[in-house]
Amino acid sequence: MAGTAPEEGRPAEAQDGDEYYGVSPDCLRAVQEALEAQDAARVRELVQPLHPADFADLLERLDEEGRRRLIDFTRQLIEPETLSHLADWVREEVIKQLGPQRVAAALSELDSDDAIDLLEDLDEEAKRRILDSIPAEDRAIIEEGLTYPEDSAGRLMQRELVAIPSFWTVGQTIDFLRASDDLPEDFYDLFIVDPAHRPIGSVPLSRAMRAKRAAKLTDLMETELRSIPVDMDQEAVAHLFRQYGLVSAPVVSKSGRLVGVITVDDVVHVIDEEAEEDLMGLGGVGETDFHAPVAETAWRRVRWLMVTLINTVIAAIVISRFEATIEQIVAVAVLMPIVVAMGGNAGMQAVTVTVRALATRDLSPGGSVWRPVMKELLVALMNAVVFALIMGTVAAVWFRNVPLGIVLAAAMVINMVWAGVAGAVIPVLLARLGMDPAVGAGPFLTTTTDVLGFFIFLGLATLFLL
Amino acid sequence: MAGTAPEEGRPAEAQDGDEYYGVSPDCLRAVQEALEAQDAARVRELVQPLHPADFADLLERLDEEGRRRLIDFTRQLIEPETLSHLADWVREEVIKQLGPQRVAAALSELDSDDAIDLLEDLDEEAKRRILDSIPAEDRAIIEEGLTYPEDSAGRLMQRELVAIPSFWTVGQTIDFLRASDDLPEDFYDLFIVDPAHRPIGSVPLSRAMRAKRAAKLTDLMETELRSIPVDMDQEAVAHLFRQYGLVSAPVVSKSGRLVGVITVDDVVHVIDEEAEEDLMGLGGVGETDFHAPVAETAWRRVRWLMVTLINTVIAAIVISRFEATIEQIVAVAVLMPIVVAMGGNAGMQAVTVTVRALATRDLSPGGSVWRPVMKELLVALMNAVVFALIMGTVAAVWFRNVPLGIVLAAAMVINMVWAGVAGAVIPVLLARLGMDPAVGAGPFLTTTTDVLGFFIFLGLATLFLL
Repeated sequence: MAGTAPEEGRPAEAQDGDEYYGVSPDCLRAVQEALEAQDAARVRELVQPLHPADFADLLERLDEEGRRRLIDFTRQLIEPETLSHLADWVREEVIKQLGPQRVAAALSELDSDDAIDLLEDLDEEAKRRILDSIPAEDRAIIEEGLTYPEDSAGRLMQRELVAIPSFWTVGQTIDFLRASDDLPEDFYDLFIVDPAHRPIGSVPLSRAMRAKRAAKLTDLMETELRSIPVDMDQEAVAHLFRQYGLVSAPVVSKSGRLVGVITVDDVVHVIDEEAEEDLMGLGGVGETDFHAPVAETAWRRVRWLMVTLINTVIAAIVISRFEATIEQIVAVAVLMPIVVAMGGNAGMQAVTVTVRALATRDLSPGGSVWRPVMKELLVALMNAVVFALIMGTVAAVWFRNVPLGIVLAAAMVINMVWAGVAGAVIPVLLARLGMDPAVGAGPFLTTTTDVLGFFIFLGLATLFLL
Repeated sequence: MAGTAPEEGRPAEAQDGDEYYGVSPDCLRAVQEALEAQDAARVRELVQPLHPADFADLLERLDEEGRRRLIDFTRQLIEPETLSHLADWVREEVIKQLGPQRVAAALSELDSDDAIDLLEDLDEEAKRRILDSIPAEDRAIIEEGLTYPEDSAGRLMQRELVAIPSFWTVGQTIDFLRASDDLPEDFYDLFIVDPAHRPIGSVPLSRAMRAKRAAKLTDLMETELRSIPVDMDQEAVAHLFRQYGLVSAPVVSKSGRLVGVITVDDVVHVIDEEAEEDLMGLGGVGETDFHAPVAETAWRRVRWLMVTLINTVIAAIVISRFEATIEQIVAVAVLMPIVVAMGGNAGMQAVTVTVRALATRDLSPGGSVWRPVMKELLVALMNAVVFALIMGTVAAVWFRNVPLGIVLAAAMVINMVWAGVAGAVIPVLLARLGMDPAVGAGPFLTTTTDVLGFFIFLGLATLFLL
């Protein structure tokens, strides 16, 4: 009983899993104090047990001075994987401090995809200096990888893989694996290749392990192979993995030769990245800047604020055309934000659902958009009528002015229906033009709903209420 | 040369991978035509080669009538996995049409986690009817799974796993795997258990395959085991997989016994779901409704439109307090939307980054938020000053009224700085209260920036311009 007691107590407190991460708030505080006190031995003792991913988190959570000291104290302890886990901002800083020799040594130890991922975002000079310090053989692999377009399968794949000739048996394969010392750290599928080194099938390791030594691999293999061309976009790669529940997939060159393998852990990273991009896009932030310095963050966000400013200035110009109306019926100035806000909101709902449907390929930008657009129109119409009735009545009673209520209701219906249709159409149009629907759709939409909202409401008021 | 030609041509056109999915627009059209024509044989011929995930996509893309016919025609072809891949809306419809016997048969063939996932969202009566048709042994496993809280590791795990006693060698293990016929379809790690069936380590299959037959598993195993308690939240599970690059992880009961295993494909699904939830939350849509019927969609979106309506009505009440000011200086009605829009936008940027940081655990809701809040304050202040200067000048020139420009600039700075701080604080507060920051933060924030924006600008105008 005594032996199991601590385990009994564990899960109840651990539901959110916080104690499962290396860098607890306590750990962070202890490291900060030790860094403060310049106690290098204590710092090393604290960070020694950390997983590289946790060590990276720790570096991100310290301020610049803390990071500098931590690296100074633990230079020899830092594992190559730590660099892979760092956010861009911090990574650059750390790479600079470690120096090209140390970074080059780390790169040689990493899988080729991780090494490329580390290098690709550095500036040309830093990249050159590091590459020059890498042994020629590793360098060739990395440089070849860098020739593939960014965000393509070629950048994502690792070149280390297990390719087995099609005439081998399970026994031969196991003997080969036991004898070879040039295998990837982890692999999940054996890829069967023909004499031209083209993949013709794959055998999951669990299946190979269950088979008798005499079994032929070609009898065990899956032949419905989802081969990925090197230049496929990483978003499409992620979709393939998700759709077909893949754990690893072969990457083939233009001539069909097996040149690498993409594993699910790389894809998890991509899925995460793409989700983040969509979220940031809709939120009006170019790319997450949580770890970025203040000035850089402010600068990056200026762009979308500028778009908003231009949008509202256009709206202000529209309003100013109706100054006479506002002077005579001040109530329209009180009510006009309602028309605009409801339109903006209904439109953003449609944009969000459409952007997501594009991301999950439930909606193909090339295909027909008739059905989703009609649906958004009907949804917007239904809600518009309900809310227009409510607000029209409220306004009529509030200002004892029934025509004002009717004008408000009419403007709300028109603007919300427009918002629903535009919210479904704009992301698709952006996608067709090869732009990122998540990034542009929001500002585009609100510009139209703001301008149209003010114009319709003030215009109708001018026509019917003066 | 002739043999390689088709492959040469392939990747160039396939960069977005569209031709790699079973359900191309052409395929969809062909199926629709065959369904129209009631040509059952042609329909079966078209869908036969589809992967279950593609078949599910096909079902989702048809209208209700098309779906009904397709199932009628292909009843015997539908694989159990197809049901797992269906969106909730469509799934209910299909399950109803297939009937409890057919669904029960499908459930028995699925891994336990997929079976539970299928059942959990059905209403009690449907669930009961299906469970009654399942053989007792399978039913017990599923019913036990359903006792775990929703979104917990217990629901996510499959009970089929490979547990190996700690004293076995690689050779014994391979012999056992070859002899056993009760193994999971796919597995990636062997879990080593002590006599009390508690996991003490894991051996990746690739490592076991490379080792000599005489090697002891305890010499090969990873001892830094990331065991997951059955009641851990799925979001925390996903974070563990992402953080440590896991492919599978053991799930343990309160007493530490190995009860299941979670594999990365389930986690990919969770990551995707959580990302979608955050996106939909910020977009003011409860949950994606792309495939939902019109009336249901409209109803689900009403909630956030209602929040927006209440928000803008409060704002309208604030504006109405200043009718006298607007009557005398109509320019304030023209300019007031600018103050509100810029505040709302700056605030949503802060909200988006904070919500994401909470999701990725870059920000722990329990820890100190001093640093991110200060950062958002400074970022907002920098941008607020820049935009206030621009717009203040524009307004002063436009309306030939310097005091008006100064009032506008002051109101913009106050509202944007508030927006930055509130945008960082509100999501954290919601998280501390156990609520979903992505869902509530947006409306909360814009309510404050709207009301405050109108109040500050119109208040300052009343004080200094009348």
